[in-house]
Amino acid sequence: MNLNPKRTIAALRELQALTGDEKGAQRVAFSPPWIKARNWFLNQLRDLPCLVQMDEAANLWITFKGQSQKELWIGGHLDSVPGGGWLDGAFDLLAGLEVLRSYCSASSPPLTLCLVDWADEEGTRFGRSLFGSSAVSGSLQEEEIFSLRDRSGILLSDVLKDYGLDPKKVLDASKRKINAAAYLEVHIEQGAVLENLSLPLGAVIGTAGVERHRLVFTGMANHSGSTPMALRKDALVGASRLVLFLRDVAKSYNGVATAGCCEVEPGLPTAIPGICRLTVDLRHLDKTNLQKMWRETLRKAQLIARDEGLELGCETLLQVDPVSFHPQLVELCKESILEVFPAVHTMGSGPLHDGTEIAKAGIPSAMMFVQSKGGISHSPKEDSSIEHLELAVIALEKWVKKTIDWILGNNR
Amino acid sequence: MNLNPKRTIAALRELQALTGDEKGAQRVAFSPPWIKARNWFLNQLRDLPCLVQMDEAANLWITFKGQSQKELWIGGHLDSVPGGGWLDGAFDLLAGLEVLRSYCSASSPPLTLCLVDWADEEGTRFGRSLFGSSAVSGSLQEEEIFSLRDRSGILLSDVLKDYGLDPKKVLDASKRKINAAAYLEVHIEQGAVLENLSLPLGAVIGTAGVERHRLVFTGMANHSGSTPMALRKDALVGASRLVLFLRDVAKSYNGVATAGCCEVEPGLPTAIPGICRLTVDLRHLDKTNLQKMWRETLRKAQLIARDEGLELGCETLLQVDPVSFHPQLVELCKESILEVFPAVHTMGSGPLHDGTEIAKAGIPSAMMFVQSKGGISHSPKEDSSIEHLELAVIALEKWVKKTIDWILGNNR
Repeated sequence: MNLNPKRTIAALRELQALTGDEKGAQRVAFSPPWIKARNWFLNQLRDLPCLVQMDEAANLWITFKGQSQKELWIGGHLDSVPGGGWLDGAFDLLAGLEVLRSYCSASSPPLTLCLVDWADEEGTRFGRSLFGSSAVSGSLQEEEIFSLRDRSGILLSDVLKDYGLDPKKVLDASKRKINAAAYLEVHIEQGAVLENLSLPLGAVIGTAGVERHRLVFTGMANHSGSTPMALRKDALVGASRLVLFLRDVAKSYNGVATAGCCEVEPGLPTAIPGICRLTVDLRHLDKTNLQKMWRETLRKAQLIARDEGLELGCETLLQVDPVSFHPQLVELCKESILEVFPAVHTMGSGPLHDGTEIAKAGIPSAMMFVQSKGGISHSPKEDSSIEHLELAVIALEKWVKKTIDWILGNNR
Repeated sequence: MNLNPKRTIAALRELQALTGDEKGAQRVAFSPPWIKARNWFLNQLRDLPCLVQMDEAANLWITFKGQSQKELWIGGHLDSVPGGGWLDGAFDLLAGLEVLRSYCSASSPPLTLCLVDWADEEGTRFGRSLFGSSAVSGSLQEEEIFSLRDRSGILLSDVLKDYGLDPKKVLDASKRKINAAAYLEVHIEQGAVLENLSLPLGAVIGTAGVERHRLVFTGMANHSGSTPMALRKDALVGASRLVLFLRDVAKSYNGVATAGCCEVEPGLPTAIPGICRLTVDLRHLDKTNLQKMWRETLRKAQLIARDEGLELGCETLLQVDPVSFHPQLVELCKESILEVFPAVHTMGSGPLHDGTEIAKAGIPSAMMFVQSKGGISHSPKEDSSIEHLELAVIALEKWVKKTIDWILGNNR
């Protein structure tokens, strides 16, 4: 069958109509719309000569046996955040499906092709993103499986049982990677870098490391009318100074820094904020620079606290090292893009992806980005131009072909 | 009966034991503990030759008829915020009671003395503070009485009926002020100015005006990892800049300014704040300066919004003009304080009080403040030294005596 990128777009529209509403995509992992999406996806595979399997971690594998046992994986995820967009995760998988289809029309491919729908990439319900891919990579811990609960108190392990899975066997999914030779993923950028460069596609060199912490400034709540300015210990004033510093530190290291949560107590118009809880999320592609950014941020927070007469608490929420993708696969990605468009940008990814997990596991991996309109994602407004999406499907097919050659050449 | 300030302290302790718990005072107006407090208070009046009446707005009046129909009012309020302190409101009333008692032992006083327990000063349940005093002053609007609801949706008018009051007649309470010649109120400072000056008591020259507004900065929510700093429209960054400006504008006008609420959307560690709702509360004793403070704040918010690529919305929550107390009564307050302590401070009040309402109604009014430990109020930690509280009772008696002389001399 010839590659038909228009089929990918049509399928995405159909999926969105089936599993989204006016508030956006609703395919939260382990929810009825997600199951609906997977059943719909299985239906797309009806006529393909592929083996369909669900592994111990609820990942769905579509395998087209080739002449070599070596496997080239193409990944994506059908799950979405609630009120998400039509592309995040689903485009990856359906672009992969279109490429797989083009191989299925021929006889057996030179090596084994695997299309994988990772389970619970978003981590919406249990707060553990990259669930399925980290089970395969080996970074998921058994204690997480048995301790994570959703907001209503339901255990992840009980939900896994409801879906016919044995929570004790989830980590067995890591055996799957024995024959993996490379992992490719195409994803919308979820940022506005490509749009600002007027480029449809980018080659991703790695995902940024993350330092995520909760800083708690504690001053003294008091009446807004009776406390002269000089006698105040205003927690929000301290936090505000740090928010402005974050922008400076990010710019000076060419990273990004965000204060996403800002909660004030007592939170009354007539009360000086006694407590302000601020989350800081720092990201950088280089580990040394990331650590410097965080150290300077913490030192600044301490100085501000001393200056304002506040106490400072700090709780670490997440620390992830930067992950570099495989240079050769990035190079092949660039070459593939240049065959469909006269310019290419190599870039880092701020968000983590399933590809991060697979790269960490030592499997040569890389990603391709498609321009996002306005850089908007995790929103019903998420969008990319049809032209760019179709270009991505074509570039992915070229990238798969080059990667097969590279794997086979590499191991000759 | 001789003045006995220790009785005031003992009564306050008894009241607190009866109507508070480990989380503080619980005498929310129109709640069972408030009724309990009033019944206890009525019991304190048992042996006094006074007329006890509840007016149409639930204010409780204790009247000791004198040789003149002219009335000197002494006010306070038994109601508290939930988890409040043992002094806010109750001290005023019980100090007044002790002074009243000292008159009751003699024969009829030269003019009529009224002790009033204002209903719902705090406005906790229905969000309308100074309820009883504003019914008497005339600033309460009939539509407020019929539209206010508590959090569970219960109408104020229905609650008034439950308490035996006719909601249509609440405003008739304003007739009460026909014979009023002066209003005195002693209250804890609820700020730390007197403590910082090491003074027990202060004479209050007026209450500050208030400009309270909600400012809404709207930018663009986006992923914290994928959006370069230069492409962001971060609503919290705009709000943070304004929070820091508030301190500058307050200092340059010698007023106070507070951002008490700061709410961020979507409020996720991984999302750039798209919306930030900030309340600003500006206070000044001088109307012109207050208006300048607010105009500069709004202009600055507009400049920041333009600078950061944000939209700005503004909703007015409260506008109250400053109120000046009667200069002669303030002078008598100072003289009274100087008879019990060698130094006195004249000061403004940031918080509004029932005295503000009565002054607005054209009745000569003034207030005396007692030092608050750490400036803390609306908290179980609220406290004042026993010595200072006792001094306040003694100074109040002197102030009442001087005011009686002033009223009678004034009208000779």
